[in-house]
Amino acid sequence: MSKVAIVYHSAAGHTAALAQSAAEGVRDAGAEPLLLRLEGDDYAQALEGVRSADAVIFGAPTFMGDLSAGFRAFAEASAKDWYVQAWKDKLAAGFTVSNSPSGDKLNSLTSLALFAAQHGMVWVSTGLLPGTVAGKIGPEDVNRLGSFLGVMAQAENAPADVTPPAGDHKTIRLLGARVAEAARRWKAGSPAAVATAA
Amino acid sequence: MSKVAIVYHSAAGHTAALAQSAAEGVRDAGAEPLLLRLEGDDYAQALEGVRSADAVIFGAPTFMGDLSAGFRAFAEASAKDWYVQAWKDKLAAGFTVSNSPSGDKLNSLTSLALFAAQHGMVWVSTGLLPGTVAGKIGPEDVNRLGSFLGVMAQAENAPADVTPPAGDHKTIRLLGARVAEAARRWKAGSPAAVATAA
Amino acid sequence: MSKVAIVYHSAAGHTAALAQSAAEGVRDAGAEPLLLRLEGDDYAQALEGVRSADAVIFGAPTFMGDLSAGFRAFAEASAKDWYVQAWKDKLAAGFTVSNSPSGDKLNSLTSLALFAAQHGMVWVSTGLLPGTVAGKIGPEDVNRLGSFLGVMAQAENAPADVTPPAGDHKTIRLLGARVAEAARRWKAGSPAAVATAA
Amino acid sequence: MSKVAIVYHSAAGHTAALAQSAAEGVRDAGAEPLLLRLEGDDYAQALEGVRSADAVIFGAPTFMGDLSAGFRAFAEASAKDWYVQAWKDKLAAGFTVSNSPSGDKLNSLTSLALFAAQHGMVWVSTGLLPGTVAGKIGPEDVNRLGSFLGVMAQAENAPADVTPPAGDHKTIRLLGARVAEAARRWKAGSPAAVATAA
Repeated sequence: MSKVAIVYHSAAGHTAALAQSAAEGVRDAGAEPLLLRLEGDDYAQALEGVRSADAVIFGAPTFMGDLSAGFRAFAEASAKDWYVQAWKDKLAAGFTVSNSPSGDKLNSLTSLALFAAQHGMVWVSTGLLPGTVAGKIGPEDVNRLGSFLGVMAQAENAPADVTPPAGDHKTIRLLGARVAEAARRWKAGSPAAVATAA
Repeated sequence: MSKVAIVYHSAAGHTAALAQSAAEGVRDAGAEPLLLRLEGDDYAQALEGVRSADAVIFGAPTFMGDLSAGFRAFAEASAKDWYVQAWKDKLAAGFTVSNSPSGDKLNSLTSLALFAAQHGMVWVSTGLLPGTVAGKIGPEDVNRLGSFLGVMAQAENAPADVTPPAGDHKTIRLLGARVAEAARRWKAGSPAAVATAA
Repeated sequence: MSKVAIVYHSAAGHTAALAQSAAEGVRDAGAEPLLLRLEGDDYAQALEGVRSADAVIFGAPTFMGDLSAGFRAFAEASAKDWYVQAWKDKLAAGFTVSNSPSGDKLNSLTSLALFAAQHGMVWVSTGLLPGTVAGKIGPEDVNRLGSFLGVMAQAENAPADVTPPAGDHKTIRLLGARVAEAARRWKAGSPAAVATAA
Repeated sequence: MSKVAIVYHSAAGHTAALAQSAAEGVRDAGAEPLLLRLEGDDYAQALEGVRSADAVIFGAPTFMGDLSAGFRAFAEASAKDWYVQAWKDKLAAGFTVSNSPSGDKLNSLTSLALFAAQHGMVWVSTGLLPGTVAGKIGPEDVNRLGSFLGVMAQAENAPADVTPPAGDHKTIRLLGARVAEAARRWKAGSPAAVATAA
């Protein structure tokens, strides 16, 4: 069974709720989610979790046009793993949330993809056409904001049980399942797995 | 009076309609708009227009995650002006349109800002808080998508007299006025203007 | 055997020479390269090539801060494939070249990664630490510019047999091999391959 | 006299040394620099300094592909000023430093420009052609890395009195002078200044 770590920083709880939906998606695909919430300034557990996983979904709110400082502090703490490329060839994906439809969330997603690339990871896109392809966009629609590199969610100024809307949770659940299936596939084709099968 | 060039590429007509709203905004602020539509592969008139202007608003649709090829061809044709930094210290701003709320439009806006920076220009942001600050987002709202570096508009699969909605046209009209006022201010403070006044 | 398409636009020949090195890398890993140079405005062959491939390496020069218009025109022509997500789950990677060490090349690489993500592809990073980790940077060094999302090359104002230097060609050859090995692995783990093996 | 705040986060001291060169440039142009180093988690002084300034130069190291967490924490702390757009229409510029020529520094510069745009600021580019235009790049050259949106510096693994090289310090000193001159011009053309002169 593949293990998919979900490493996230959450301030108001919206990112944490989305991380739960990502975990559900991982389970939908028959894999094991490992929820790692970034809190305080000890990242040992999160780093160890990433090292143990086949794939990692990174999540953080977008504040003032980029990833939260809480996530960035974790990124900095990963420098020791970077020097030895400990995460090389693991799969990665990402999501972010902010208050308006754009809100410069794309900058957070590209920052996540660049962070993963620095670690030599392989980045899994959402693989979802936007809701507009099917007509008018509504809060129930999958990928209603039209994002591809990762999942964008939009939260109103309300608690995490009210917002982001169902469509955003569905979208990230699909991402969780997609990453889990990709992790299975990537693992099954690895030199070790192929040698065992032969 | 300041002159504000609006250099744009339009395929389906939405960008052209938005350019008209930008021109209205320029007039609102008592400046002269110069609409320069990019067509064919002769950029002499557009390049001359930019050289003659105090400020330039660049506009293009976002196709497959970045600026249209029609706009990029103009950008390449500007390389001769780049070598002599003929646009240096002019003001610049930008807008883009695509089919979904995000649709990677931020990548087009950062590409426009980088293009202007290569030319040594000074970039004017939208200066508008997003509609969500005032509550629920609607099609009549200014900056309903929450963009800051430039204006983002969203067009449905319908003609340019129907979409993008009024809010997007209002937003870009405000950008036109903001750039025109900035051009007046920038010109009034220039060494030449200050010497004349003294 | 896996097939890796190398779809590139070249103006002065530097990108074409780098594409050859990428093809060598693909062969190093025992896979089949398919070189597809973008010329004129008929993209049927390039699009068909991409559809037939397991992985695609995209390449283009960076002009005025972003991908060349010649590449962007191909990206636009791929919209029909986008609507049906014909490239979904293929692997992708990218490279770019310009005249100065940075030259805003990162904007081209993120634009390529966003383009691939719109198509639902899976992005393979370079997986190479920069030359500076080992000390002073020289023209023979692998990843001498310190790029991770894709390969950056730097060409002087000289012909393609002189520049970019050997280190950049080595770097892109390693990318070719890495993408080919990833394509093998991804293919071996696919549901179809696993079913056959069982 | 114009006041130019230089708000920076520095870990190993390289950014702090570059901030000093920026301040020298501000003085070169007859303006007053205000050096504001971000330390600890009390940003009251830095925020007050920004509010009092005509222009702001933001600086931070690039760690793992984006701005340091120390700078991002300041960006988050500025949200209260964002709600009332307290920085609107101030000028802004930026610089960053990392260990390799690219090192994804462009992502930090675009993040800074987006942060400034969220605050409604006006962004001043470097206005400098890269060293390669004049031939071979050397450590003494201005804009040797070829950056336009802001200044990129490259530091070896050595103390701040040794690296970054002289060219990078010259480049940022020129940026300081450019921002100061732009601040003078922008102030002289402001409605208040024009009314007083009349």
